[in-house]
Amino acid sequence: MDIMKCIDGQVKRIEAVMNKLVPESIEPEVLAKATRHLLEAGGKRLRPCLALIACDAVGGKAEDAMETAAALELLHTFTLIHDDIMDKDEFRRNVKTVHTIWGEPVAIIAGDALFAKVFEAVAANAKRLKLPADRVVKLFDTLSKASFEICQGQALDMLFEERKDIGENEYLKMVSGKTGALIEASTKVGALLGRGKPEQVKALAEYGRLIGIAFQIHDDVLGLVGEEKKFGKPIGSDIREGKRTLIIVRALETAPSSRKKIASVLGKRKASKAEIKAAIEMLKDTGAIDHATKKARELVARAKSRLDVLPDSKAKRFLLELADFTVEREF
Amino acid sequence: MDIMKCIDGQVKRIEAVMNKLVPESIEPEVLAKATRHLLEAGGKRLRPCLALIACDAVGGKAEDAMETAAALELLHTFTLIHDDIMDKDEFRRNVKTVHTIWGEPVAIIAGDALFAKVFEAVAANAKRLKLPADRVVKLFDTLSKASFEICQGQALDMLFEERKDIGENEYLKMVSGKTGALIEASTKVGALLGRGKPEQVKALAEYGRLIGIAFQIHDDVLGLVGEEKKFGKPIGSDIREGKRTLIIVRALETAPSSRKKIASVLGKRKASKAEIKAAIEMLKDTGAIDHATKKARELVARAKSRLDVLPDSKAKRFLLELADFTVEREF
Repeated sequence: MDIMKCIDGQVKRIEAVMNKLVPESIEPEVLAKATRHLLEAGGKRLRPCLALIACDAVGGKAEDAMETAAALELLHTFTLIHDDIMDKDEFRRNVKTVHTIWGEPVAIIAGDALFAKVFEAVAANAKRLKLPADRVVKLFDTLSKASFEICQGQALDMLFEERKDIGENEYLKMVSGKTGALIEASTKVGALLGRGKPEQVKALAEYGRLIGIAFQIHDDVLGLVGEEKKFGKPIGSDIREGKRTLIIVRALETAPSSRKKIASVLGKRKASKAEIKAAIEMLKDTGAIDHATKKARELVARAKSRLDVLPDSKAKRFLLELADFTVEREF
Repeated sequence: MDIMKCIDGQVKRIEAVMNKLVPESIEPEVLAKATRHLLEAGGKRLRPCLALIACDAVGGKAEDAMETAAALELLHTFTLIHDDIMDKDEFRRNVKTVHTIWGEPVAIIAGDALFAKVFEAVAANAKRLKLPADRVVKLFDTLSKASFEICQGQALDMLFEERKDIGENEYLKMVSGKTGALIEASTKVGALLGRGKPEQVKALAEYGRLIGIAFQIHDDVLGLVGEEKKFGKPIGSDIREGKRTLIIVRALETAPSSRKKIASVLGKRKASKAEIKAAIEMLKDTGAIDHATKKARELVARAKSRLDVLPDSKAKRFLLELADFTVEREF
């Protein structure tokens, strides 16, 4: 399945709307360049696609959710720009990060500016559809609460780097905020814009949260055993940065014999390629990578079962496929 | 006039609502502390007060705008937290800045988190009032556009520090974004929540923009000739930081004989107290400070004339007084 063609040609539409929301004509020029940089670097556009399909799946037209779909990508990109500053990451989507090119102050503003545009886009969407007031309120409430949860998840993630005793549940709580919240919001706003019934909106929200968590766990797996070119980030960088991924958490928790060795490479920015490779082999041996893959697949199975309340449709079948994709993709 | 008691007891109500929106119970604890830090450090609460009075002035009850009023202070505080990072400022409202206490990554997230809460608060307000959809859309559209404009203003402000040839109009454009946009939004959302007529909403928006610009010019004046204790920031710090204020812009533009001397202290972080004092005296001599005060008063006069469309009321008289206050206050 090619997510880039998720709904025939829709990704191009999404990108055109993004381009209109964040045009080259923004003043001053540096703000135009810095806000557009990561948007132009590509990406799977997973969140916008999910919103369009969710809208379709409850009986709306995908087009009805278009501005909000684009807004979700802006929101996601805003979090990436700020995360990259905090993590001091130099590359993202195979290009230099915003703060690496323009410095931290411009990167902070560029993130803020994209965040501001999110709500403008949603307002335009609600206006175009002439949505009833209670649904408009729910749209904004969903997006603002998700944004707040992302901040909580990011704060937890940072705190974890200073701790060696993270439990699996704590990890899942962090990822639920950092990644799950926005993917839940994506399917939920899609369903709201498609004028879905309350139980459909709820089911699609839960589906989103579950595949969101699975998506992040699979991302962590790819970060260790993926192909660098496809993945877009250096393999093993999570180890160098001392990130607490499910794999690391599991290995530290369940493999006391390897704990010391793993801990010695974790967060070692200047670790050699050989050291990283050895650490990855060790993580494989502890069974922690298999455990993570199993966990991600369980979450996907639960997500799919949530869709039982939806009538059969092309969109529903696509959501079922998309759930599998989140844990089978190589990029 | 005591702005802190702007509408009998309303500031306490605003602070109680802010406290509920950003409670101590936020997890993780560091996020609660960092988001609440500047909110608890006081402040004039100018923007919330303006929203409440504008709501009143068009025939609503001040209470109708309460959550949005609190949201305006969160939005303002978010911009302060991020600005302080960019400007490397150590103090604000007589307390240490967020990044100085918790580091830049936490300060970035704390700002983002406050920004996210803004829209949640407005959604709650719109829901409580059962506002019609078109007005809900306008509320969010106003706030998101103002937020984007603030980013533009901040970006311009940063660019200006690298330039010596800023004209007065360029300066006014920057301040219009950085300060005028949010004060315009404050009176505008107040009028929208009070179900004001379109021409009233427009007039109050324009009034807000004009006093906002005047407010910033007066702030720049106080930063040179104010009392440090009342003002809350070190006098002359704009000179040390190389900020392009209207006073600096005017002096560089119109006093060629002083230009070199002023330019030599501008942005000199380690300038002595005597050097700063001498620079301030020179700025006085050029007439640039008087020029700024005159400009601010002109803007206030224009702002007040915008209120002609409003029927006479206590709230209207208060707005007229408040306009004068923005250029007469000492803090």
